[in-house]
Amino acid sequence: MADDPNIASKVIKNDPWYSSYATRAEQMRASEIRALFAVANRPEVVSLAGGMPYLGRMPFDKLADQLGDMLRSKGQVAWQYGSAQGDPHLREDVLPIMELEGIKDVQPDDVVIVNGSQSGLDLITRIMCDPGDVVLAEAPNYVGALGVFQSFQVDVVNVAMDGDGLIPEALEETILEQRRQGKAVKFLYTVPNFHNPAGATMSVERRPRVIEIARKYHVLIVEDNPYGLLAFNGQTYPALRSYDSEGIVYLSSFSKIIAPGMRVAWMVAPPGIRQKLVLANESAILCPSNMSQMTITTYLDNFDWKSQINDYRGMYKERCDAMDEALKEYLPYCSWLKPKGGFYIWLKIPQGLNAKEMLPRAITAKVAYVSGTAFYDNGEGADHMRLSFCYPTPDRIREGIRRLSTVIENELATVRLFEPDSGKERG
Amino acid sequence: MADDPNIASKVIKNDPWYSSYATRAEQMRASEIRALFAVANRPEVVSLAGGMPYLGRMPFDKLADQLGDMLRSKGQVAWQYGSAQGDPHLREDVLPIMELEGIKDVQPDDVVIVNGSQSGLDLITRIMCDPGDVVLAEAPNYVGALGVFQSFQVDVVNVAMDGDGLIPEALEETILEQRRQGKAVKFLYTVPNFHNPAGATMSVERRPRVIEIARKYHVLIVEDNPYGLLAFNGQTYPALRSYDSEGIVYLSSFSKIIAPGMRVAWMVAPPGIRQKLVLANESAILCPSNMSQMTITTYLDNFDWKSQINDYRGMYKERCDAMDEALKEYLPYCSWLKPKGGFYIWLKIPQGLNAKEMLPRAITAKVAYVSGTAFYDNGEGADHMRLSFCYPTPDRIREGIRRLSTVIENELATVRLFEPDSGKERG
Repeated sequence: MADDPNIASKVIKNDPWYSSYATRAEQMRASEIRALFAVANRPEVVSLAGGMPYLGRMPFDKLADQLGDMLRSKGQVAWQYGSAQGDPHLREDVLPIMELEGIKDVQPDDVVIVNGSQSGLDLITRIMCDPGDVVLAEAPNYVGALGVFQSFQVDVVNVAMDGDGLIPEALEETILEQRRQGKAVKFLYTVPNFHNPAGATMSVERRPRVIEIARKYHVLIVEDNPYGLLAFNGQTYPALRSYDSEGIVYLSSFSKIIAPGMRVAWMVAPPGIRQKLVLANESAILCPSNMSQMTITTYLDNFDWKSQINDYRGMYKERCDAMDEALKEYLPYCSWLKPKGGFYIWLKIPQGLNAKEMLPRAITAKVAYVSGTAFYDNGEGADHMRLSFCYPTPDRIREGIRRLSTVIENELATVRLFEPDSGKERG
Repeated sequence: MADDPNIASKVIKNDPWYSSYATRAEQMRASEIRALFAVANRPEVVSLAGGMPYLGRMPFDKLADQLGDMLRSKGQVAWQYGSAQGDPHLREDVLPIMELEGIKDVQPDDVVIVNGSQSGLDLITRIMCDPGDVVLAEAPNYVGALGVFQSFQVDVVNVAMDGDGLIPEALEETILEQRRQGKAVKFLYTVPNFHNPAGATMSVERRPRVIEIARKYHVLIVEDNPYGLLAFNGQTYPALRSYDSEGIVYLSSFSKIIAPGMRVAWMVAPPGIRQKLVLANESAILCPSNMSQMTITTYLDNFDWKSQINDYRGMYKERCDAMDEALKEYLPYCSWLKPKGGFYIWLKIPQGLNAKEMLPRAITAKVAYVSGTAFYDNGEGADHMRLSFCYPTPDRIREGIRRLSTVIENELATVRLFEPDSGKERG
């Protein structure tokens, strides 16, 4: 994709500041996902690329009235500077949300409001990691987290996962191996529920084992949980944070359960880390937006948010089912795990195909996805693609998979043509 | 202040992660200003401490209607993810604002929307500075910028300023001295208009000279201009960016001319730097809040913002005059520069007094200010205090200065009591 001038970030020629940048700036590069957005968002393209939640069912008429009332009565607060730790009202409001996943011992003072999960990942990496420090993470890995780790010059070391999430034995082996190499392992980054992009969920059996290993080796866990409440069958899993309060930094967000446009997420951390997160938040953004936070509290106070989340669950389940059915019909020779929640299917494509190289031809055929290579920082992943079912309607999803199947079949035909055996047959 | 458990950040005892933090986290500390807020905001205290704009004249009733309309018609965009560079509509809207200060050659593609000026300072430092690099800055210096520089382990080197702003000769000497020491000078950070906290404005004569020196030694200038349009007499100064497009990163904000609660600011940078700022913005926060940006564009599109700024100017001028008059009446033996715009008076207190040590007694006397020490990272500044006239009404300002004069007189009496000479006189 870096070769395509339309979708790659342009190289600036004759930059007079070329030799002045910080070392970390050399690590920064446009994520494959963001670079793709401009093209994938053309209306004729079925985009299975983005992770945008579907907001078509949001009650914006009623919201407009409620937000108007909020602004009339509290405008001078909503438009003013706020606290670096976040609005106390909102820090109270997140407690019942976390209780749905078994987290019951948190006080508002333990919570830090951050400017979206991305900022939360930035802050925890900023306070924990010197250049060359190690962060352990599931592979494939959330692309936004990879971007943060790269920008802080962290070594990301992959820990194997399967359909039941992170493999505890692999975690222990990886920690020991890093210690043998004399590396400082600063934390384990994990997305235990409905992983992005892998779709896997850490089994309930594995959760205490993962915590036990982390505790044994004094490795902090950063638990990133944006999708936990979007389980298709309504069953939530106990958060890692529900087992342990000392060794876990918990991160969740309103982006998927309400909407991402306010950039409001929250963290729960043990006292020493929480104090540093507040200082880092102040240094990074001074304070989260009062207007954004009060938009969220207005929503939570005036709407039946649990019923809204239930509605979302049903909608995303229907879309996931539609994608799963279409894959069975059009691409039965590919393999995938049907997720129990979240936004994504991680599709393994036939041997010999390269998801990254194939992408321009897919977009020409009016379907977009994200190449698996975006979710590794070591060049792996070309044998996978991430398909998002969150935003398009079931009909569009079906049409997108149909288009994708024609692209894949054309690719396969080309591959066969150049196989040594196929040459012999033709000769 | 670090000794007062009520206003200092508490030290966390027995932190199990004590030895795990990044080196940069050791540099992070609560700013004296933020630590003071909880106490200074008690209603019985006249706070001359904070830099909060006065929002009592904002037309929140009309704003509620306009924002309601925006949400009804564009809710699905306002609540969705946006672009890492910022909303194109807003990037267009900032151009006429910058034209008021002589910047006329900017295209929307040159602009990056950031999550408040604080985030802008974070991003430029992040992409330019390795630990140990030098940033040149006026002393005293904006406390938020100092916090960013410390968190990226930058060496802040002070450049002398006077009532006409940064002294060009001092800038050149300082650059040469740093070069002699083999240090990498990454940029000059300057607040040319109505400096926070010094109140000084760089004279029009000095501006091209400062740029010429920066160009001669290939030192980037970061021009931070939140107050430029708040000149009391309505006369704006040509921005440094209006003289030069290649060597200046320009930063401005809606926080003081509209309101800070949306956390929306913008940067203009030459192409190579701008590209890296967008990548850093994506890594730090993914994208600025669409809801916040569209709140600002709704305001700009529906209200006479120039007339609103004029109204603000008149209001702040009245408050500045009130403070100046009260100082002449109650504290004629102190010295200060009456600013031509902005929010602050930088007061020199009588010899022998210490603004930092005196602060608890001032708060007991129900008046708050910020000790000058907050604006240096080397312990200097105890002979000054920053007095903000932006938020309290003229009557309250007058009362605040009256209370402050009683505190200062008590301090002076104590100092005289312990002076060697006074002992002789009494003996």
